[in-house]
Amino acid sequence: MAHAHRRAALRELLRAADLDATLVTDLVNVRYLTGFTGSNAAVVVHAGDSENDETRTRLVTDGRYTTQSAEQVPELPRVIERACAVAGVKAAVGDGVRRLGFESAQVTVDAHTGLLEVASESGGACDLVRAPDLVQSLRVVKDEEELAALRRACAAADAALADLVAAGGIRAGRTEREVSDDLERRMREHGADGPSFETIVAAGANSAIPHHRPTDAVLRTGDFVKMDFGALCDGYHSDMTRTMVLGEPADWQRELYDLVAASQAAGRAALGVDVELARVDASSRDVIKAAGRGAEFCHGLGHGVGLQIHEAPALAATAVGRLAAGMTVTVEPGVYLAGRGGVRIEDTLVVRSNGAELLTLTDRELLVL
Amino acid sequence: MAHAHRRAALRELLRAADLDATLVTDLVNVRYLTGFTGSNAAVVVHAGDSENDETRTRLVTDGRYTTQSAEQVPELPRVIERACAVAGVKAAVGDGVRRLGFESAQVTVDAHTGLLEVASESGGACDLVRAPDLVQSLRVVKDEEELAALRRACAAADAALADLVAAGGIRAGRTEREVSDDLERRMREHGADGPSFETIVAAGANSAIPHHRPTDAVLRTGDFVKMDFGALCDGYHSDMTRTMVLGEPADWQRELYDLVAASQAAGRAALGVDVELARVDASSRDVIKAAGRGAEFCHGLGHGVGLQIHEAPALAATAVGRLAAGMTVTVEPGVYLAGRGGVRIEDTLVVRSNGAELLTLTDRELLVL
Repeated sequence: MAHAHRRAALRELLRAADLDATLVTDLVNVRYLTGFTGSNAAVVVHAGDSENDETRTRLVTDGRYTTQSAEQVPELPRVIERACAVAGVKAAVGDGVRRLGFESAQVTVDAHTGLLEVASESGGACDLVRAPDLVQSLRVVKDEEELAALRRACAAADAALADLVAAGGIRAGRTEREVSDDLERRMREHGADGPSFETIVAAGANSAIPHHRPTDAVLRTGDFVKMDFGALCDGYHSDMTRTMVLGEPADWQRELYDLVAASQAAGRAALGVDVELARVDASSRDVIKAAGRGAEFCHGLGHGVGLQIHEAPALAATAVGRLAAGMTVTVEPGVYLAGRGGVRIEDTLVVRSNGAELLTLTDRELLVL
Repeated sequence: MAHAHRRAALRELLRAADLDATLVTDLVNVRYLTGFTGSNAAVVVHAGDSENDETRTRLVTDGRYTTQSAEQVPELPRVIERACAVAGVKAAVGDGVRRLGFESAQVTVDAHTGLLEVASESGGACDLVRAPDLVQSLRVVKDEEELAALRRACAAADAALADLVAAGGIRAGRTEREVSDDLERRMREHGADGPSFETIVAAGANSAIPHHRPTDAVLRTGDFVKMDFGALCDGYHSDMTRTMVLGEPADWQRELYDLVAASQAAGRAALGVDVELARVDASSRDVIKAAGRGAEFCHGLGHGVGLQIHEAPALAATAVGRLAAGMTVTVEPGVYLAGRGGVRIEDTLVVRSNGAELLTLTDRELLVL
């Protein structure tokens, strides 16, 4: 049902853009519109169809997915063809489409040449029109089915971290990789299909590398341990970062942590309907700038999260646009002192009419292990 | 050293294509050429540089990767900029490049528009030239460093499966998902950074779905259990499929297995230097066709494997080209009887002057558990 509603919402956008149909080739968008999870597919959605009569809307996939596509998308006519995008244009031309949108931010220069050839075989009657962000513009606001999946993903990450801490899994002597594997295993035990991205466990000076990959480096007493991780549930991604200290924190560590925590709280408090994206970034960043650490916060504040780990909207100084109810975003300021260590604190939240609701619920106090 | 050699090989191709330089934006190609593993990067390689003087060759990445890029690629000048491809074109224009290649099979229509704008700011003196497959044409033949990583990845998968079987991990009563998680954990224990793709464990009728994802379906006595999986080591992917039976196989199961095993052996035997890609597919497929099961073998025979799980060359009926020494490919025929069950047997091999060498070493006899 959710998928049919999403296609109906897309048809509204097609009519507004004066398109007869659009070719969806981004596989994440295909999944969003149909529930199909195969690795090769396209969808043609027609402006003129209705929710009860989608006989021209077509799912295209190849022979490996004949059974799977029939199970996942019983309600749509299918075309089985290896070259999905080309077959989609052919089908649209056959259905008399004159203005066909395509995802110009996803289709490559070479693939576009191939699509133009097919469209021109119709005697030039079918124009390919850039329509880069139609489905993305729907995806930014999550429906109830999506929020339920995000909640499951965030809960799996919360529970896995709680288990790991309770079991003494984060301790001096273990390697970053061991901690990472342990955490990922526990997320699976709590229902995750897997990690939502490559888990970051960064100890000591490594914590100053914003996107460090786990190594065989051994955790030592006195280290910051920064863990940035998430769970994947039914295609939806959670994203959370917590930074801990092994043993009694040094003054500089507590100071750094308190600064980032204050910045993160300010960022969360700034979330709300109609708030400018850049304003949210500034609310959090100003706290760090005021402490003279602006240069050490070298990335954006956060990002949308859903069927992709990074998706619209970006919360960054240069971002244009405003928040809307139902958007899910991360808030993740960090300060990184090269050679010493860094702190990042991150949550996933959903924007509500009265502010924002936390989906990741793990406590944000400095955890001393 | 391997990376510098690869860039030198690319420069030969640039000279042959009369390009002054090329912009590499595919992240896998960036990793191949430099060893950099960040999520946002581009490389500009100049035809006129030498292996000892690469002062114009540049790695572009953003501020999150300042430390990591300096560690992974100390030998190349860097540009730190968020919009990597645009910054790469700017740098090339500044270095007087007149003909700049770009990866037209990777750059999107919208991104290309942005690059054209930057190039045109040079007064039209810099042409963007489609150069889609330069790095890919190098990557098909693996060097010794790559083969060593592939060997490690294949060995981790072999060892994990052996452990799983020995521990009785594939048994009636377990779910597909439990078996999959167990197998992935064991690959990590044997040195894998993780699975090389989403592990397939498909029991009973699910084994007839070529790309089934593990579910909570329970394994039962009498089931085929098809497992398609691989390990990831240092960016390199292994790929192997084995199909087993729980309990004494029925006649139709043994017959189906023997057919696919004969087909797979024929496909492996067909591998060799200068052999046509389509010929390899036919050698294996003819065995299945002769048994009247051609329609149930609904996918290509195999694919190249390396830094990507699927890469050139494709072994398929429509493939054009020939094998060369050092290419690594899978051979994976399958026959799928909808509603009953299916068998696929797959290995990863490297083409040698006298045939092919198996990298996945697990036995291919029907395993009865």
